[in-house]
Amino acid sequence: MADTLPSWRDTPTRAALLEFVEAVGEEGSAEFVAPADRVAVFDNDGTLWAEKPVYFQFYFVLDRIRSLAGAHPEWQQEQPFKAAIAGDLKGVAATGMDGLLKLVQASHGGSTMEAFEAQAGEWLAQARHPETGRLFTDMVYQPMLELLDFLRANGFTIYIVSGGGIDFLRQFSERVYGIPRERVVGSSVALQYRSDGGQPRIERLAKLDFIDDKEGKPVGIQRHIGRRPILAFGNSDGDYQMLEWTTSGSGRRLGALLHHTDSKREWAYDHDSAVGRLDRGLNEAAERGWLLVDMKRDWARVFPAP
Amino acid sequence: MADTLPSWRDTPTRAALLEFVEAVGEEGSAEFVAPADRVAVFDNDGTLWAEKPVYFQFYFVLDRIRSLAGAHPEWQQEQPFKAAIAGDLKGVAATGMDGLLKLVQASHGGSTMEAFEAQAGEWLAQARHPETGRLFTDMVYQPMLELLDFLRANGFTIYIVSGGGIDFLRQFSERVYGIPRERVVGSSVALQYRSDGGQPRIERLAKLDFIDDKEGKPVGIQRHIGRRPILAFGNSDGDYQMLEWTTSGSGRRLGALLHHTDSKREWAYDHDSAVGRLDRGLNEAAERGWLLVDMKRDWARVFPAP
Repeated sequence: MADTLPSWRDTPTRAALLEFVEAVGEEGSAEFVAPADRVAVFDNDGTLWAEKPVYFQFYFVLDRIRSLAGAHPEWQQEQPFKAAIAGDLKGVAATGMDGLLKLVQASHGGSTMEAFEAQAGEWLAQARHPETGRLFTDMVYQPMLELLDFLRANGFTIYIVSGGGIDFLRQFSERVYGIPRERVVGSSVALQYRSDGGQPRIERLAKLDFIDDKEGKPVGIQRHIGRRPILAFGNSDGDYQMLEWTTSGSGRRLGALLHHTDSKREWAYDHDSAVGRLDRGLNEAAERGWLLVDMKRDWARVFPAP
Repeated sequence: MADTLPSWRDTPTRAALLEFVEAVGEEGSAEFVAPADRVAVFDNDGTLWAEKPVYFQFYFVLDRIRSLAGAHPEWQQEQPFKAAIAGDLKGVAATGMDGLLKLVQASHGGSTMEAFEAQAGEWLAQARHPETGRLFTDMVYQPMLELLDFLRANGFTIYIVSGGGIDFLRQFSERVYGIPRERVVGSSVALQYRSDGGQPRIERLAKLDFIDDKEGKPVGIQRHIGRRPILAFGNSDGDYQMLEWTTSGSGRRLGALLHHTDSKREWAYDHDSAVGRLDRGLNEAAERGWLLVDMKRDWARVFPAP
């Protein structure tokens, strides 16, 4: 076991992860879970990759809005677009959820699926974090990559269950996490199949269809997977219901929350953070038996070597 | 190859299926398709199991309505419920799509997911076909079961993409077809996660949320799988868009339609059938290069031995 999870320090947290995986994999034991039911779900933002200063997909939204601005001269005078074009995050924030929704719909809808996938793929290949200068896709957590490998090696099937956009996530989930496109559950815009005139295509409408957050996460899990997971890993109150749903099933279960405690190697935030708030989950973790992963204490390394 | 697809007669249809699977599996050939992209989608009603005299799930709808009737005395005077309780299929049909929708929503919504799955599972374990007296789950096509096995043995991943209800299909897809729950795409009612008071649960609302038919099939495929299939197999015009989407991609593709031509061993119907109408697909199959499977000519056996 010494070579397992090398970026995890030898703490009770690591021991708890090893013990859980061993218990459900031990044939004949009371806690054995058949491989088909060894379903593990992972949040993405703040769980598999970082989410500060804001969700990385938001930078994609801003860049898309800027690319589209030439075709929308009216945006120069209209919020939230004016603020987005100027890169004025405070100005965007002042427009609230309504403004954010407008930006997401304008940047994620109104194109074909093929065009959107190309845009997202190209963006992910070169977009860099504003503070670290690293590619966003390198701002993933090395200990979590090792945990995914460890679970796969022990017969688990892993899904991403994220509030982020399903089609955005699918552009890097396999390459970065080894999680194939069909195992990504996320928020989505409405789609429409069109075949009138020219090549058939799937069009993305400027209308959010499903929000895979909070109560939406168990719903997304049911729709896509149709099995209750036995392991759920998140980091914010947006994951509360996913952990609650997972850990209230019968048999052995594991709910885990990554607590961002490391202001030196990453960011430290919890109860009061606008992005990635962890309040209820932190207050209830002990009573619910959820594993709190303390980044500062439990991780020997945060990001992969450059 | 002699032992492959034993219930398929030695016709050009069987040869075309064998040739396609060989071509996409041959490493180094121009038509090779990597295993991850060997995605095959199958319609269910009329493709994997029979659909006459009406879709089998409709009998489940009627039985559910009868079970619920005691709690709904008003249904005795109200269409389409009155006709449904009496088993008067013509009376139900006279209420049109609107009536049908009411029955589906009343029978498939308004319970927890757990209760619905138990009801559907119990029904499927004992409900029998009104003409043959066989279990509905035995009214599956032996040649198609063999084709599913053959594709799996050649690295294909198989999904059901059906207009039927996703949660109904999931109660038998693995046992009968070897297709696990997470690889079922179907129509669905809206779901809601509830955890206030008592055990967390997923509630099924009396509201259709997604209809996985016609233009809905490519949308369902995109949402669940996120890959364009290379093989699509259907039998009715409800599958037209799924075949069109599949076969208009680049590289080698196969679209196939089961033509119900066997009035002795099964049922013969196409252009004018109310259930499972195959009109446009039949007219365009030759020009589109879709494989027409002629049940009477191509199948040595239709149903499994009792």
